[in-house]
Amino acid sequence: MSKDIGITVKKNENFSEWYTQVVLKAGLVDYASLKGFIILRPYGYSIWESIKDTTDRMLKETGHQNAFLPLLIPESLLGKELEHFEGFKPEVFWVTHSGNDKLSERLALRPTSETLAYDVFSKWVRSYRDLPLKLNFWNTALRAEIKATKPLIRTSEFLWQEGHTVHTTEEEAKEEVMVILKIYREIVENYLAIPVIIGYKSDKEKFVGALYTTTLEALMTDGKALQVGTSHNLGQNFSKSFNIKYLGTDDKEHYAWQTSWGISWRLIGGLVMVHGDDKGLVLPPRVAPIQLVIVPILYGDKDKSAILTRAIQIKDLLSDFRVYLDDRKEFTPGYKFNDWEMKGVPLRLEIGPKDLEKKSIMFVRRDTAEKTNVDNTEVKNKVETILQEIQNNLYIRAQERFKKNIYSVNDYYKFKEIIDNGGFIQASWCSNTECEQKIKDETGADIRVIPFNQDSLSPCIYCKKEGKFIVYFARSY
Amino acid sequence: MSKDIGITVKKNENFSEWYTQVVLKAGLVDYASLKGFIILRPYGYSIWESIKDTTDRMLKETGHQNAFLPLLIPESLLGKELEHFEGFKPEVFWVTHSGNDKLSERLALRPTSETLAYDVFSKWVRSYRDLPLKLNFWNTALRAEIKATKPLIRTSEFLWQEGHTVHTTEEEAKEEVMVILKIYREIVENYLAIPVIIGYKSDKEKFVGALYTTTLEALMTDGKALQVGTSHNLGQNFSKSFNIKYLGTDDKEHYAWQTSWGISWRLIGGLVMVHGDDKGLVLPPRVAPIQLVIVPILYGDKDKSAILTRAIQIKDLLSDFRVYLDDRKEFTPGYKFNDWEMKGVPLRLEIGPKDLEKKSIMFVRRDTAEKTNVDNTEVKNKVETILQEIQNNLYIRAQERFKKNIYSVNDYYKFKEIIDNGGFIQASWCSNTECEQKIKDETGADIRVIPFNQDSLSPCIYCKKEGKFIVYFARSY
Repeated sequence: MSKDIGITVKKNENFSEWYTQVVLKAGLVDYASLKGFIILRPYGYSIWESIKDTTDRMLKETGHQNAFLPLLIPESLLGKELEHFEGFKPEVFWVTHSGNDKLSERLALRPTSETLAYDVFSKWVRSYRDLPLKLNFWNTALRAEIKATKPLIRTSEFLWQEGHTVHTTEEEAKEEVMVILKIYREIVENYLAIPVIIGYKSDKEKFVGALYTTTLEALMTDGKALQVGTSHNLGQNFSKSFNIKYLGTDDKEHYAWQTSWGISWRLIGGLVMVHGDDKGLVLPPRVAPIQLVIVPILYGDKDKSAILTRAIQIKDLLSDFRVYLDDRKEFTPGYKFNDWEMKGVPLRLEIGPKDLEKKSIMFVRRDTAEKTNVDNTEVKNKVETILQEIQNNLYIRAQERFKKNIYSVNDYYKFKEIIDNGGFIQASWCSNTECEQKIKDETGADIRVIPFNQDSLSPCIYCKKEGKFIVYFARSY
Repeated sequence: MSKDIGITVKKNENFSEWYTQVVLKAGLVDYASLKGFIILRPYGYSIWESIKDTTDRMLKETGHQNAFLPLLIPESLLGKELEHFEGFKPEVFWVTHSGNDKLSERLALRPTSETLAYDVFSKWVRSYRDLPLKLNFWNTALRAEIKATKPLIRTSEFLWQEGHTVHTTEEEAKEEVMVILKIYREIVENYLAIPVIIGYKSDKEKFVGALYTTTLEALMTDGKALQVGTSHNLGQNFSKSFNIKYLGTDDKEHYAWQTSWGISWRLIGGLVMVHGDDKGLVLPPRVAPIQLVIVPILYGDKDKSAILTRAIQIKDLLSDFRVYLDDRKEFTPGYKFNDWEMKGVPLRLEIGPKDLEKKSIMFVRRDTAEKTNVDNTEVKNKVETILQEIQNNLYIRAQERFKKNIYSVNDYYKFKEIIDNGGFIQASWCSNTECEQKIKDETGADIRVIPFNQDSLSPCIYCKKEGKFIVYFARSY
């Protein structure tokens, strides 16, 4: 592979450029002609489909249904929940014309669908019999990004799902928030092999209009945090603005309790950053579009047809897996190895004249580069075992890095000293937004998460008054 | 069921009002607050998911891949294929602002993605090795509808898939057009049980920019035609505008050959119109979100727990099907019957005290209202058989109506006389657009399709010159 086809920078030397090269060269995304927008290519979309199908199954198993809402929101509707929408206003794309005609009212492109959904929920919800209402929408959100954009991490349009639920009681809404958080954690940790810390957002960082926000925070290898999913308890804030009331079993009207939650293609960006290496992408087998690639090693015509026949047999044998036989004639085996390594295929099977002779196949792992000769009779079992091992190893490796980059700190001088190295700083906080803001201003680090599992407290890292919560600070995407 | 909950007009008395009532009251759609836009509710979305999953599977089996393109198209890009885009211009929604800032260039909301896709295809296609490129996009298209809108049939935003392929030869593009048409026909006839006639569009009616358009035309029970899918051969028209060239095996550059094609949620509208009756929706089992509903018949407390136990057993027994046990306490069996009939559930199973005694279950078909007592031991087999029968019967019934409403006519006076009754008029045509336009102006009927299977010709129905094609005329949606 010529130098400019492969990844030309090292991950630990120029992380940002490395990331851009990987997502482009591995064929996940391409830039659209419009700045801030990207195209998701088939290889990238296939990972999204894998995330989507798994999430969708779990949402359906827990009683959620999919539906469709329009993209455009009339400006007048946005006035119903001013506090919430104000936060999005600087980012909203506005439609003002259709054809040559000026519209009588501006239409916002959906930055998120709370206002649109809750307007219609107020029609649909009449009595306790209509509840719970648990809907999910697979669509895109549009938010004009004025700051630097980054493919899959920060773009002006992104693929996501947004869930919106309505309940009779506060308790039920609280439970729903946790059911969703658990589903997200399952996806992120068990499928994408990305370790996360879960907990609450601070009031400053919570979703505008929510009672509280729960979050999953991951750590990228450059030391920055990435929020990979959020699940909000909206309380009755929106039901009061949108008049979502139900007749209870007590024959009285009550405002309903609500939640909303979402994950996006940002998960794919996280996947790249966490597992990728200098050769390119490294994909966990559970979400890899191609789990293993078979490369026949042909030198001239030696055993050519026998090798190809064997390769096809192996492909058929492994049809339970997502397998690809790379029999392209125009490329050398070496080129193919590099190509599939860049694309992060978890496992490579090589079949050459020697392998034919020995009645075995060479297995090469993407995560460790480890090579194993596998006897023909063992191939299927071994594929199953190794893919599982790769899945586990990626998680364990990431988990170790994650743990190594959590620094428990009691002293603000120490905090400022080590924040430049990246990672999470675990510290006690007085729960005062002022301290939070000052730390942000002075160090660039946010409170990413207030973990559910609280530890013993020290005084607030900033003001030294009584500590109320152990929190995790970090700079973030 | 009180009168205003059920469908209050007859299908053959006020078709348009009947349709609106059915789609709203069966819970398929709701109106959005913005005129011309609709919400697809879970019951409707579930039908869409069924169409989508089946289509997606067939597209993948034939080598197509999914991907994602942005919603917004810069105005400058649209200039690349002026003829094509001119047709959409009066319907385009324009974004002019983001936040408070005026954009330097207007952005069109995708009315269809040819321009966006082909701009990036010109980067991706370099050599014959990159071809064929066969991509599909599940998204929405936005076209401001100025005329009267109709839920699922004519709305300003609609769910659809748009396929875009690039090939090395004209022959391959031609084949692709037919592969897709076959997939569409399979969906429409074998899943939705809607008979269609397939063939070419006339030049006047073809997709702007296409060499030719193939179409599937169905007939609604009010006598109007509905175009349910199209597959276009774009020739080299777009590849020349967008400079999509590949290096051939002959080491020379060639313009590529292209196709595009799509189906939309209009199929759900067609489903409603073709199969529905005065009681509401009638769904073919293959796409029904609920294939059968079990209604326990409880009079007071008589055998209550035994009946409910039996109902749960039956539900478990039938878990291979999409089954719903309606054990709601607040509604009478009669209410439930009407409710599920309105929602078009193909089969209802009733279990009451008598059925317990006789060790049997009452089966009620939605399509024929036929009741059958089925012995307990026969339930599972019988469900399988009857669902298949319903699927077949719906198609045969629609097919008979379809055939009965094709009128072969040689005389233009006769044409004008019977066109008001609706249906297809089969006639010979000279292939002259002028005759076509005059017939349209004088009768409101278009050439819907030039069938692949041509019959013996008469002189042109309008000008009496030599007939070139047998065509089907109709008024349409």
